[in-house]
Amino acid sequence: MSKNLTTRAEDYSKWYNELVVKADLAENSGVRGCMVIKPYGYAIWEKMQAQLDKMFKETGHENAYFPLFVPKSMFEAEEKNAEGFAKECAIVTHYRLKNDENNPGKLMVDPNAKLEEELIVRPTSEAIIWSTYKGWVQSYRDLPLLINQWANVVRWEMRTRLFLRTAEFLWQEGHTAHATREEAIEESEKMMHVYAEFAQEFMAIPVVKGLKTETERFAGAEETYCIEALMQDGKALQAGTSHFLGQNFAKAFDVKFANKEGKQEYVWGTSWGVSTRLMGALVMTHSDDKGLVLPPNLAPIQVVIVPIYRTEEQFDAISEQVNGLMTELKKLGVSVKFDNRDTQKPGFKFAEWELKGVPVRIAVGPNDLENGTYEVARRDNLSKEVVSKEGIEVYIQNLLKRIQSDLFTNALNYRDSHITEVNSFEEFKEVLETKGGFISAHWDGTAETEEKIKDLTKATIRCIALNRVEEAGSCVLTGNSSNGRVLFAKAY
Amino acid sequence: MSKNLTTRAEDYSKWYNELVVKADLAENSGVRGCMVIKPYGYAIWEKMQAQLDKMFKETGHENAYFPLFVPKSMFEAEEKNAEGFAKECAIVTHYRLKNDENNPGKLMVDPNAKLEEELIVRPTSEAIIWSTYKGWVQSYRDLPLLINQWANVVRWEMRTRLFLRTAEFLWQEGHTAHATREEAIEESEKMMHVYAEFAQEFMAIPVVKGLKTETERFAGAEETYCIEALMQDGKALQAGTSHFLGQNFAKAFDVKFANKEGKQEYVWGTSWGVSTRLMGALVMTHSDDKGLVLPPNLAPIQVVIVPIYRTEEQFDAISEQVNGLMTELKKLGVSVKFDNRDTQKPGFKFAEWELKGVPVRIAVGPNDLENGTYEVARRDNLSKEVVSKEGIEVYIQNLLKRIQSDLFTNALNYRDSHITEVNSFEEFKEVLETKGGFISAHWDGTAETEEKIKDLTKATIRCIALNRVEEAGSCVLTGNSSNGRVLFAKAY
Repeated sequence: MSKNLTTRAEDYSKWYNELVVKADLAENSGVRGCMVIKPYGYAIWEKMQAQLDKMFKETGHENAYFPLFVPKSMFEAEEKNAEGFAKECAIVTHYRLKNDENNPGKLMVDPNAKLEEELIVRPTSEAIIWSTYKGWVQSYRDLPLLINQWANVVRWEMRTRLFLRTAEFLWQEGHTAHATREEAIEESEKMMHVYAEFAQEFMAIPVVKGLKTETERFAGAEETYCIEALMQDGKALQAGTSHFLGQNFAKAFDVKFANKEGKQEYVWGTSWGVSTRLMGALVMTHSDDKGLVLPPNLAPIQVVIVPIYRTEEQFDAISEQVNGLMTELKKLGVSVKFDNRDTQKPGFKFAEWELKGVPVRIAVGPNDLENGTYEVARRDNLSKEVVSKEGIEVYIQNLLKRIQSDLFTNALNYRDSHITEVNSFEEFKEVLETKGGFISAHWDGTAETEEKIKDLTKATIRCIALNRVEEAGSCVLTGNSSNGRVLFAKAY
Repeated sequence: MSKNLTTRAEDYSKWYNELVVKADLAENSGVRGCMVIKPYGYAIWEKMQAQLDKMFKETGHENAYFPLFVPKSMFEAEEKNAEGFAKECAIVTHYRLKNDENNPGKLMVDPNAKLEEELIVRPTSEAIIWSTYKGWVQSYRDLPLLINQWANVVRWEMRTRLFLRTAEFLWQEGHTAHATREEAIEESEKMMHVYAEFAQEFMAIPVVKGLKTETERFAGAEETYCIEALMQDGKALQAGTSHFLGQNFAKAFDVKFANKEGKQEYVWGTSWGVSTRLMGALVMTHSDDKGLVLPPNLAPIQVVIVPIYRTEEQFDAISEQVNGLMTELKKLGVSVKFDNRDTQKPGFKFAEWELKGVPVRIAVGPNDLENGTYEVARRDNLSKEVVSKEGIEVYIQNLLKRIQSDLFTNALNYRDSHITEVNSFEEFKEVLETKGGFISAHWDGTAETEEKIKDLTKATIRCIALNRVEEAGSCVLTGNSSNGRVLFAKAY
């Protein structure tokens, strides 16, 4: 299986595409730009959903569900929103098929069933949600509204890649409404921190928290907070965004409230989202030439046990002991699978579970039974050791924690060694081409310079890091004055 | 709040519509036929999802995700499927909006961005899923495929009602593939039983398990199993269906496998689903003129505690004691809310939580503090009693179980007293008009008679109950011979 995987050094992009398919995460469908998320991939997404949902609820949010369709006129209401998204999208114009009389057995769109107003399949739900909030908010007592939606959205992308860019994708979108500007800003910042915590603690992906420049900002937002990750090929990936919307949508949809003094004011808004794109980030951060490497906190199967035997008696003896171990591991909350297929050899199984990124593999044969041991192999660093069966369940539990933490540390070391300060445009281009990663450089703050650098190098400003230090300098391209560095990178 | 609710006797249909909105379950949206599921309603749906998902996984199923869109040609592939669903649906024909030069600020569909092939927004996913399964199945070793999807679907309904019939709705759809006819039939039956168990144990709704007649069957199925419930107005509601698809979809999408002897065979299929329609069934089975009545197993809030006080000292003393009780209840897995709003009076709070169907209300005032008691009120039968605070948490835990079981018993008594055997068409019509409910009658087994009875009475055959007894008789309309009774009813 894995022997057919293209290596990262050969072709990183091909490696990714092959891995996603071979590890049973997803595949292209018969519908242009849309993917099928296969059970193994979906199981990882479910774990991500469950954890994020828990974190959203702990921060006071509730889930709700809003329509898939947005009437065209609603898009027009928020002009900047329309500019940002509404152009490339799926448009429903008719509501009935009929038998095609000229082609027996074929169906055609019934021309008599044309909609009066076209419906857009939501590329994002600000418009439909803010038009609903208008009915929900009268007084300051109705605020804040802290709502999240798990949904599918569609953006008519021309060039698609599994998880990273698909026409339809799954995501969550939080949409909140507040009485004050300060509270809305606090909310957008809070959700950026929630995303960062999720990325680091569960996905084992270090992220830079920062602000987008005006060019890179969501069209309807006054400020976009983001978390930016770095992939193994030195390209950045935007892993989540949280927007402070100001009063833009409240004004577009006339959402006002009576404040404590009885005066009418426009509501302040935020929106924030992460998507199945995170699956791509997960794959590209940790995996290797043998296949997936999954962090234990998100692995659908944390431990796989492979029996090694020649006779049925050996298999029975191994199975009996393994069943005991499985019970103990499950008690500790470890998800474990006994791969007792008799149709495949151990070597095949080893390769398959390596490809699928199961964090820990336990092998057990007749010698182990005799010696009271197991062979324990880590997927991340491929190390193996022989472990006594006494107390092995606690050993495994701790090992999973260690793997989780090692994955993060390794990704952090890689990331930190790929943030390079440069002070000239020559250096900028050289680092970008030879090493990649984040380039920390002074920028004069203008959209023109940003655009020019993008044209010349394909690198964009990923963010103005929240923790950047004020520092006088001169722009790497124009030499004009700058008061701090920003992070550039080529990006997914 | 609840005082404005239309009563069931006045107008059952209006009562339902008002209740769904006033109890904050759902509301109509700005998009024709599509609803907004509000946080309180969605919280109930989440509990239903979580339980069903658990039951699906316990029966060996995995989740996956397939595209929202189905190319027109895929629909045509399974002719009967197309007949059943494909006619009234949302059709995407274009993929871009552009600025309308004749109407500044307005957008128009870009005529240059017409799709080569129209895409149907899925009304159900058999076509897209079976076209995918073709790539997943080669050998008997790849079977069974036991897959479920949680998704939104769209059917262009002309007359819609919140939850009961909406253009877009949420559901789960299971799609399985098997090596043998027997195994597929067993799967369809198993899922019908899973649905019945869920309806009875969690929704407290008794259901009849049965088979649909050919007329009422899913177009692409060889057999449709169903669970049928009875609402308080005497109308039936189909609460879930499970289809044995035979080899219909395998043949339409050429899904074959090599059996153990190496011979190519078509795969056998099933599909099964329940939807947000169940929310309508839940409301209509248990609720009353004061509002919702929720079974404890699905109530987002199982217990609400309302403090009754005049002074701040009293409030503080109550709060302290209530916090202790909350901790104890949460330890037992009871979800509890302390309604400590100082903006509303107790009477208002009582009415609000009655409207929202919280199963148990606990009130506590200064006298209770002195006497070491709480006042405990049941939402279902509106009874109240004073309970000593010693061990009240276990008392509440047991009370919730009792309420769950009483709700089911009451619904069962109502249902059982509304199954009426009739032996003449006069009697049939009279019972239908005066009493409603299920009418158990002999039928000659022909689609013609079924159609005629429907035309004359609006009653349809809800199902041929699995537990019906063989019994010779003569058809209630034609007098022709029959070998058993079937259940007729008017239905949602």
